[in-house]
Amino acid sequence: MREECGVVGVVKHGTESHPVPASLQIYYALYALQHRGQESSGITVHNGKDPMTIKGMGLVPEVFDKNALLELKGRVGIGHVRYSTCGDSMIENCQPFIVKYKSGSVAIAHNGNLVNSLELRRKLESEGHLFVASSDTEVIAHLLVKELLKNPVIEAVSNVMKQLNGSYSLAIMIDDLLMAVRDPMGFKPLCVGSIDSGYVVASESVAIDTLNGKLIRDVKPGELVIFRDGGIESHQLFREPNSAHCVFEYVYFARPDSIIDGKLVYKVRERIGERLAKEHPVEADMVSPVPDSGITSAIGYSRQSDIIYEESLMKNRYIGRTFILPGQAMRETAVRLKMNTIGQNVRGRRIVLIDDSIVRGTTSRRIIDMIKNAGATEVHARIGSPPIVAPCYLGIDMASRDELIAAHKTIKGVEAVINADSLGYLSIEGLVESIGINRDDLCLGCLTGAYPVDIPGEKICQRRQLKLHEFQ
Amino acid sequence: MREECGVVGVVKHGTESHPVPASLQIYYALYALQHRGQESSGITVHNGKDPMTIKGMGLVPEVFDKNALLELKGRVGIGHVRYSTCGDSMIENCQPFIVKYKSGSVAIAHNGNLVNSLELRRKLESEGHLFVASSDTEVIAHLLVKELLKNPVIEAVSNVMKQLNGSYSLAIMIDDLLMAVRDPMGFKPLCVGSIDSGYVVASESVAIDTLNGKLIRDVKPGELVIFRDGGIESHQLFREPNSAHCVFEYVYFARPDSIIDGKLVYKVRERIGERLAKEHPVEADMVSPVPDSGITSAIGYSRQSDIIYEESLMKNRYIGRTFILPGQAMRETAVRLKMNTIGQNVRGRRIVLIDDSIVRGTTSRRIIDMIKNAGATEVHARIGSPPIVAPCYLGIDMASRDELIAAHKTIKGVEAVINADSLGYLSIEGLVESIGINRDDLCLGCLTGAYPVDIPGEKICQRRQLKLHEFQ
Amino acid sequence: MREECGVVGVVKHGTESHPVPASLQIYYALYALQHRGQESSGITVHNGKDPMTIKGMGLVPEVFDKNALLELKGRVGIGHVRYSTCGDSMIENCQPFIVKYKSGSVAIAHNGNLVNSLELRRKLESEGHLFVASSDTEVIAHLLVKELLKNPVIEAVSNVMKQLNGSYSLAIMIDDLLMAVRDPMGFKPLCVGSIDSGYVVASESVAIDTLNGKLIRDVKPGELVIFRDGGIESHQLFREPNSAHCVFEYVYFARPDSIIDGKLVYKVRERIGERLAKEHPVEADMVSPVPDSGITSAIGYSRQSDIIYEESLMKNRYIGRTFILPGQAMRETAVRLKMNTIGQNVRGRRIVLIDDSIVRGTTSRRIIDMIKNAGATEVHARIGSPPIVAPCYLGIDMASRDELIAAHKTIKGVEAVINADSLGYLSIEGLVESIGINRDDLCLGCLTGAYPVDIPGEKICQRRQLKLHEFQ
Amino acid sequence: MREECGVVGVVKHGTESHPVPASLQIYYALYALQHRGQESSGITVHNGKDPMTIKGMGLVPEVFDKNALLELKGRVGIGHVRYSTCGDSMIENCQPFIVKYKSGSVAIAHNGNLVNSLELRRKLESEGHLFVASSDTEVIAHLLVKELLKNPVIEAVSNVMKQLNGSYSLAIMIDDLLMAVRDPMGFKPLCVGSIDSGYVVASESVAIDTLNGKLIRDVKPGELVIFRDGGIESHQLFREPNSAHCVFEYVYFARPDSIIDGKLVYKVRERIGERLAKEHPVEADMVSPVPDSGITSAIGYSRQSDIIYEESLMKNRYIGRTFILPGQAMRETAVRLKMNTIGQNVRGRRIVLIDDSIVRGTTSRRIIDMIKNAGATEVHARIGSPPIVAPCYLGIDMASRDELIAAHKTIKGVEAVINADSLGYLSIEGLVESIGINRDDLCLGCLTGAYPVDIPGEKICQRRQLKLHEFQ
Repeated sequence: MREECGVVGVVKHGTESHPVPASLQIYYALYALQHRGQESSGITVHNGKDPMTIKGMGLVPEVFDKNALLELKGRVGIGHVRYSTCGDSMIENCQPFIVKYKSGSVAIAHNGNLVNSLELRRKLESEGHLFVASSDTEVIAHLLVKELLKNPVIEAVSNVMKQLNGSYSLAIMIDDLLMAVRDPMGFKPLCVGSIDSGYVVASESVAIDTLNGKLIRDVKPGELVIFRDGGIESHQLFREPNSAHCVFEYVYFARPDSIIDGKLVYKVRERIGERLAKEHPVEADMVSPVPDSGITSAIGYSRQSDIIYEESLMKNRYIGRTFILPGQAMRETAVRLKMNTIGQNVRGRRIVLIDDSIVRGTTSRRIIDMIKNAGATEVHARIGSPPIVAPCYLGIDMASRDELIAAHKTIKGVEAVINADSLGYLSIEGLVESIGINRDDLCLGCLTGAYPVDIPGEKICQRRQLKLHEFQ
Repeated sequence: MREECGVVGVVKHGTESHPVPASLQIYYALYALQHRGQESSGITVHNGKDPMTIKGMGLVPEVFDKNALLELKGRVGIGHVRYSTCGDSMIENCQPFIVKYKSGSVAIAHNGNLVNSLELRRKLESEGHLFVASSDTEVIAHLLVKELLKNPVIEAVSNVMKQLNGSYSLAIMIDDLLMAVRDPMGFKPLCVGSIDSGYVVASESVAIDTLNGKLIRDVKPGELVIFRDGGIESHQLFREPNSAHCVFEYVYFARPDSIIDGKLVYKVRERIGERLAKEHPVEADMVSPVPDSGITSAIGYSRQSDIIYEESLMKNRYIGRTFILPGQAMRETAVRLKMNTIGQNVRGRRIVLIDDSIVRGTTSRRIIDMIKNAGATEVHARIGSPPIVAPCYLGIDMASRDELIAAHKTIKGVEAVINADSLGYLSIEGLVESIGINRDDLCLGCLTGAYPVDIPGEKICQRRQLKLHEFQ
Repeated sequence: MREECGVVGVVKHGTESHPVPASLQIYYALYALQHRGQESSGITVHNGKDPMTIKGMGLVPEVFDKNALLELKGRVGIGHVRYSTCGDSMIENCQPFIVKYKSGSVAIAHNGNLVNSLELRRKLESEGHLFVASSDTEVIAHLLVKELLKNPVIEAVSNVMKQLNGSYSLAIMIDDLLMAVRDPMGFKPLCVGSIDSGYVVASESVAIDTLNGKLIRDVKPGELVIFRDGGIESHQLFREPNSAHCVFEYVYFARPDSIIDGKLVYKVRERIGERLAKEHPVEADMVSPVPDSGITSAIGYSRQSDIIYEESLMKNRYIGRTFILPGQAMRETAVRLKMNTIGQNVRGRRIVLIDDSIVRGTTSRRIIDMIKNAGATEVHARIGSPPIVAPCYLGIDMASRDELIAAHKTIKGVEAVINADSLGYLSIEGLVESIGINRDDLCLGCLTGAYPVDIPGEKICQRRQLKLHEFQ
Repeated sequence: MREECGVVGVVKHGTESHPVPASLQIYYALYALQHRGQESSGITVHNGKDPMTIKGMGLVPEVFDKNALLELKGRVGIGHVRYSTCGDSMIENCQPFIVKYKSGSVAIAHNGNLVNSLELRRKLESEGHLFVASSDTEVIAHLLVKELLKNPVIEAVSNVMKQLNGSYSLAIMIDDLLMAVRDPMGFKPLCVGSIDSGYVVASESVAIDTLNGKLIRDVKPGELVIFRDGGIESHQLFREPNSAHCVFEYVYFARPDSIIDGKLVYKVRERIGERLAKEHPVEADMVSPVPDSGITSAIGYSRQSDIIYEESLMKNRYIGRTFILPGQAMRETAVRLKMNTIGQNVRGRRIVLIDDSIVRGTTSRRIIDMIKNAGATEVHARIGSPPIVAPCYLGIDMASRDELIAAHKTIKGVEAVINADSLGYLSIEGLVESIGINRDDLCLGCLTGAYPVDIPGEKICQRRQLKLHEFQ
C-alpha cells in the first residue's frame, strides 16, 4: 500500500529579501513529507517574472544541490514529493508540472487521483490538446489554462473543479499567485499555517511544524484559498453535504505527529489499539507491533488489555536501495534485512501482533512465520483496520481487487493463509469511532465497496447520489 | 559561433529482431554528430505501441547507459544532440520532443531555427495551447498535431510547412512511422542513406558512414521523405526557385568528411585556402592554421602559394569541463590550456595564419599575441570567410550585431584590433566559388545583411520576394 | 557519541560454487551493522590466489554495485563499516586494510581503539616501517606481518596481542584463512554463528540473524578463532582474571535485537528503564522517550512506575545529508527536521523524558525547550546511564573531557543547563545490575575515570594492575 | 602502445599567499599532460605540516572538484596522471603515492618502469616490508624512506638510485621539500621551468608552457634537482658515459609541441617524414597520415617527395567511453566511430599512408582495408619507425613479443598481413638522424633487441656493460 504524493506551497510577505528563502523552506517542508513519496522531488519558485524549477528522480537530499537551490530566488513557490507505480516513473511526470500559455505560467503540485482523468484527457485531446506526460496533473493544468483564458481566477478554478471527479489537494501558482485547492469531499489532507513573515500550505501539519510555523486550519473540502496581499482569502466554491476523508491517512499513511482534519493521527492510532483490545481480546503474554506503523496501536492495545508491551521485531533503520538475487531464499533475506525477530523476547510466548492492515497477506505470512520460527507459541494477529475488500480509486496505491486477500477470503480464510492462531480485524464502526469523525464524512470505499463518487463498475454510497452543489 | 543540433532517424525493415538494434545504431550515429551539439542527447524508439525515450544533459556517452539503451526495443527511432544558449538549457528542452494526442504520439528531432517561432507560439497560445518548454520544436509539434487531427499525414506536414518561416531539418516519428523533412530553402543539411536492412536519415553523411551505410542523396529543400513498407517515398511538397544553403556549414561547422548538398566539405575548405592565397598573397616563411577548423584551408593556401605548411599552434585534445579563477591571468591560462604555441617553429618567422572566421575578434587577438610573444616577426591573418556583418537568424549561434566586430569596423580596424600585420578576408565571390554552389542557392545573410526569408527589421534578398510555391 | 566500526567475516565450506556467494552475504551482514558506521564501507574476498576489494566512502548501498560485487568471487571474505572523526576520513583509511608481504597477503577489519597505537607506530617507524594511512588497523597489520615472517600463525597472533593495549575485535584473512580475534578484556563485541554451509563472525548477532544463521557464541576475551577445514578452532591465547565489556554498547550503541556477551540488549534497556523508575520516581502524567535509543527504557520506566507511555517526539525516518544556512534559527530548523514535538500529547502535561545519556547537554537542552514550548508543564529528565565524567579511550567517540558537561558540573548544574524540572541519572550499580554482568567484568572508564587498561595521565582500576597472563 | 604516466611538481617562493595556488597550477599542468595517462589523476600538496591529497580514477576534470582543489592549500605540491594495464588499475595504485614514517612524509609521482622491481620488492619483503599496492612507486618509496632513516637527503637519494634498475623520472616531496630525479640513462623525459614566483618540474615542456612559464632545461640523466630556498640546486649523482633516451617519445608518445632533451618533437616528426620519403620513395597521387600521430611526418613526406598532402581519414574528436556488442561487425563499427574515410579524396587514387609504428598489425590492416574499400587503387604504407622486434621493459606498454608482428615476420610478411601495396619502415639510422641525438644516447631496445640495461633473458648493448659510475 503506497500513497502518491506530498505537496507544499510557501509565500513570504513583502519584497525584501528574507533570511531564509522560500526555496529553502519548501525544501525543509518536503523533508518532513518525504514519507508521502520517495520517487521524485521538485520545487518551483516564481521570481516575479518566470517560474524556475529543480526536479528529478530521487529523495529530497538527492535531487536538491545547495547552490542550485539558493539560485531559486523568489518569495513564492511550491514543492512536491511523489511516489508512482512502475511505468510512468519518467522524468516528465515529476512535479511541479509547469505550463506556459498566453497570459503567463501555471505550476501545479497535486496529491490525489482523478477518477475521470482518462475521460478528461480524451476530451481535451479531441479538442486538439497535446500531452507530454501521463499524469493527472497535466490534465488539471490544461483545464485550468483553458478556463483562465476565458475567466478570472476564482471562476476559472470553480469551473475546473466542476469537471474533476476524484481526489485532489493542490498547491497552484498562477504566475506568482499562490493558491491551495481541496476537492469538494476532502479526500486527501491539506492544511494552512503561518510562518515567520508568510504562509505555508502543506499536505500535513508536520511540514508546518518543521518550519516552526503554526497550523491555522485545514483547507476545507471544496475550498479555494488564495494567498494575496499578505493575507489569506477563503473561497468556498463547493459545499457538499458530506466529506469523504480517506481513513487510511490515519491508519497507515500520515505521520503520527500530523493533525489531519482536526484529529491528531497519534491519538487515532492509540484509540484504534484500545478499541481492538475491546473488540478482539485474547489471552496472551505480550503485545507487539509490526514496526513502524503498528507501534502506536500496540501501545493502545497494551494499555487497554493490560498485557505488557514488548517488541518482537526490530526494524533496520538503514535499509536503502538493496538488491537481491532471484529465488525464495533471497526473498526471505530481503525481509530479514528489513526486520529482525528478537528471539529472546518471543521464545515460548503467546503474542498479540498489531499491524495496520493486510493487503495481499504475503508479508503478514512471512512475518508471522519468522516469529513462530523464533519460538513464539501463539501469534494472534490484530489489524488496525477492517478487511480491505475493494480497491482504492482515490489516491492510495493498494493493489488490484484480484490481489486483495480479503476480497476473496473469509476472515477464517485469511487467518489460515497468514498462519495466525487467531485474527481480529477492527470493525468499521470501531475505526470510525477511533478517528472521531462522522462516518458519513469518511471515505470507506476500500472497506465497503461503495464509493463516495461515481466510479464506473462500482457502487456509489446512497447518500452521495446528489449533484455537486456549487456554492458561489 | 556555435550551432544548434544534429538529428538522426533509423528504420529497420521487417519485424524480425536485428543483430544491432535501432537504438544502438542511433547511438553510434549521434557519436558521429557530437560536434553539432554537446549539451544534451536523446533517443526515442517506438516499439509498435508506445514511444520510449532516454534523454538528458551531457555528451552521448554520459547520457546513455548500455543496459538502458538495449531496453529501448523497436525497429524505428530518432535521436538528437543539442547545443543551446544559456537560459533554456533545461531538461524540458532536450530532444526528441514527444507529445501524445488523440490518435497516438508524435516525436520530433529538430535542427534549425524558426524566425516566426514566437509569433506561432502566441497564435497557438491564443487558441489555448499550453507549452512546457521554450523550444521551436514544441511549436512544430503542436502545429503538426493540430493538422494531423484534421488531415492525412502528407497534407498535414504540408500545411505545417506553410506556416513555418525559418530553417528546419526534421526527423519525425508519427507513432512508428519515420519521416524526414527539410525546409523549402534547405538551410540546414539533411541526408538519407541505406544501411544493412534499413535506412538512416541524418544531419550529415558521416553518421551514415559510421553505420557502414551508403549515402543515397540529400533530402531536397521542401521535400518530405517517408520511410514506409521497406522503401522510401519522396513528396516534394514545396519547390522554391532557389535554395539557401548555409555557407557556414562548409566554412566551419560540419565535419570535413561530410558531403553536404553534393559537396565534400574537405574539398571546399581546401579550395577556400587556395582562393585565399590568390586573393591575399603575402610574402611569408610559413602557413599555419588555427586548429582544427583552419587546417584544411591552410593546406590549400600552402599548396597554392608554395609557402611551406608548418604548425604554430598545438591543440590539447583532452580539454573537458575545466574551471578557472576570476582575473585576466586566468583567462589567458584558459586559452593556453586549449592551445599552445610551438615556439621553435615560429621564432623569427613571418607567418600566414589561417582561421575560418572572426566573430568578436577577442580570440583572434589572444592567439596572435601568443604567437608574437613566442617570437614570430609578422603574423598575417587570412580568414576563410568574408566579414560577418550581420547576425544569423537561421540556426547558427554567432553573436548579436553589437558583438560582431566586422559590423562596426573596417577591415583595417579589425586588423588593428586583432594585432595582425595584415588581414585578408575571403571575398563573397571566392567563398561561393569555393563551395561550388550557385550564389543564388546559398544563404549569405550574415555576410550581406540581406536574408533569404523575411525577418522583421532586416533586408530581404530581392530574388526571394516570391511567395512560397506549393508544389503538390 | 559515535562509535567506530562494524566487522564481518564469512567462510563457506568446500569449493563448490554456492548459490549465494560470500561477497553477497557479507554485503547483507554489513547492512545489518550499518548503525555501527556510516562513513565508509568495504568488502575483501579472497579467491584462493589474491584478495580482491571494493571499498569507498558512503553507506553500504552507495559503495557496492551489484555487478561489481558479484565479480568478487571466493568462498571467504571480510567486511567493514566505519565511522570516523573528521580529518582522517580519507579513502586510505577505509577498511578492510590489505597488505602484501613476503608470504602472501593479510586483510584486516577492525573495531576498537588502541591506546598505544602512536607508540607502536613510532616503534615500527623507527624500525623503518612506512605507513600510508592513519588507522590503528595499519599498525596491527604491520605487527602481524612482522610476526608471520618469524612464527606460525597462532604464535604470531599471540605475539601481536602481547603488544596491543586497548580494544580490538578483528576479522582477519591471512591469504584465504579466516580468523577472529578479540582483545583479552573483550571491550568490543564479537560473535560467531553458523550459516548454511559455513560460518560467520560479526560485531553483533543481528548480522547472523540477517543471514538466517544461528548465533553459536561470543568470541571470548583473549580468544583467537580460526575457521579451518570446515570447522572452528578455538585458541584461548590470553585469559585475564576479568573482562571489561563496554557498557555503552548496551546503553546506546548496539541494536536492541543483538545479544552481546550473553545479554539481549533489548532486555538490558528495559531493565534500565525499570531501575530508573525505582531510583528516580516522580509524579507525572506520561513517560516519553527521546527516539530511538530511549524507547525501550521508556517502556520499562512506564511499566515499573505505572505512568502511561506516550510519545512526545516523532523522528523523521528520512533525514539524509541535509544542509542548513549559518545562524541560530537554522540550527533549530536542523533539530526540527530530525524530531518533531507532538503538541497535543504534551500540552499541559508533566512528562518523564527518557534519554540514554547526556554528553555535552546541548541537544538535551534543545529537546526539552521544544517540548516546553509545545506546552508541557514539567519535564523530568531520566537518563539511562550514569554521568559521563571522563573520556573514552577504547572506541566510543564521545567528546573530550572539556566538552563533557558532567565532568565539570554537579547534577544540579546539569539540570539547570538542560532546563529540566528534575534530572535523574541511573546509578552505576543500577546500570551494572541492569546489564546483568559482574561489575568487575565491565569497562566503566567514562563513568568513573578509572580505566581497565593503563592510559597515560589517567587512573587505572586497582584490580587490573596485574600483568597480562598468557594462556598458551 | 600506451605509455605509463605524466608527473608534475610546483613550488612557489615565499610564504605569502599566491593569486594562483600551487594546487591549481598542478591541475592545469596535468591537463597539458593528460595524453600521458587517462586512467587516474592525483595531486598532493604539502601545507607545511601535512601532505593533503586528492586522487581518483578518471580524467583530470573528472577527479578534481573546484572547491576541493582550492582546499589543498600549500606552496608546494606534486601531481600525476596515469595509464596502467588492466589488473592493477585499483585505487591503491593511484599516484602520488604517500607514506608516513618516523621523520615525516614522502610523496612520490613516478613515470617509468623498474626492471628489478619484483626483486627489490622481494628483498624489502624479506626484510619485513609490507605493501599495499602493486606499483614500482611503492618500492621506490620504501627504499627512499629506508635511506632517509640513515642518511641525509642527497646521500639517501643517491643510495636509492644505486639500487634501481630501469627508467624513472620522479617528482618527490620529502615533507615540503620538492625534488626531481631522473634515472642515470634518462629514459623518460623530465624538465624544469620557471614560473611567476616559483618553479615547475614536469614530464614535458608543454606543462610549463601552459603555466606561461619558461623552460629552463631538461633534468640531466642521473641528476637530482632540489628546489630549496627559492632556488634550484643541481646534484649530478651519477654520470653514465651514455644516455638512453626513449625514441618512442619522439615517434609517438609526447606532444609535438614539447621539447625533449633539446629536440622539438614536431621537428623530429617532420624530419622522419622527409627521411621516409628519401628511404622509401614511391609513385603516388597523395600523401595521407593516420591521424593524429602521423600528421607531422606526412607533411614532411609530402614536402620532400612533392606529392600533395591530402587527408584520407578523419578522426572523431568526441569519442569517449563507448560500448559495443560482441561480434566482428561491431568491432568494425568501433573503428569507424573513431576514424572515417573521406571517400571522395581517396577514390581512384594511389596513396602513401604515413603511420608512426606497427605493433600487432591489426589496426593497420583495418585502416588500409577501409581506405581500399573507399576506392583507393593503391595504398603504400610508410612507417615512421623501424620494425618493433622486441618488447619494451622501460615504460612503454607495447605488447608482448608474441604479439609483435615484426618479431615474427619479414617486412614482406607484414606487408601482406596489413594488405599494403608496399611497405617501408624507417631505418634505425634514419630515425636516429631524425631525432638528432647520438645513437649511443638513445634506447633502441624494442628495435634491436639489445637493451641499455641488464634484463634477464635479453641481450645488453656492448657499450653498456660498464658499472654504474657514481659521480659524487
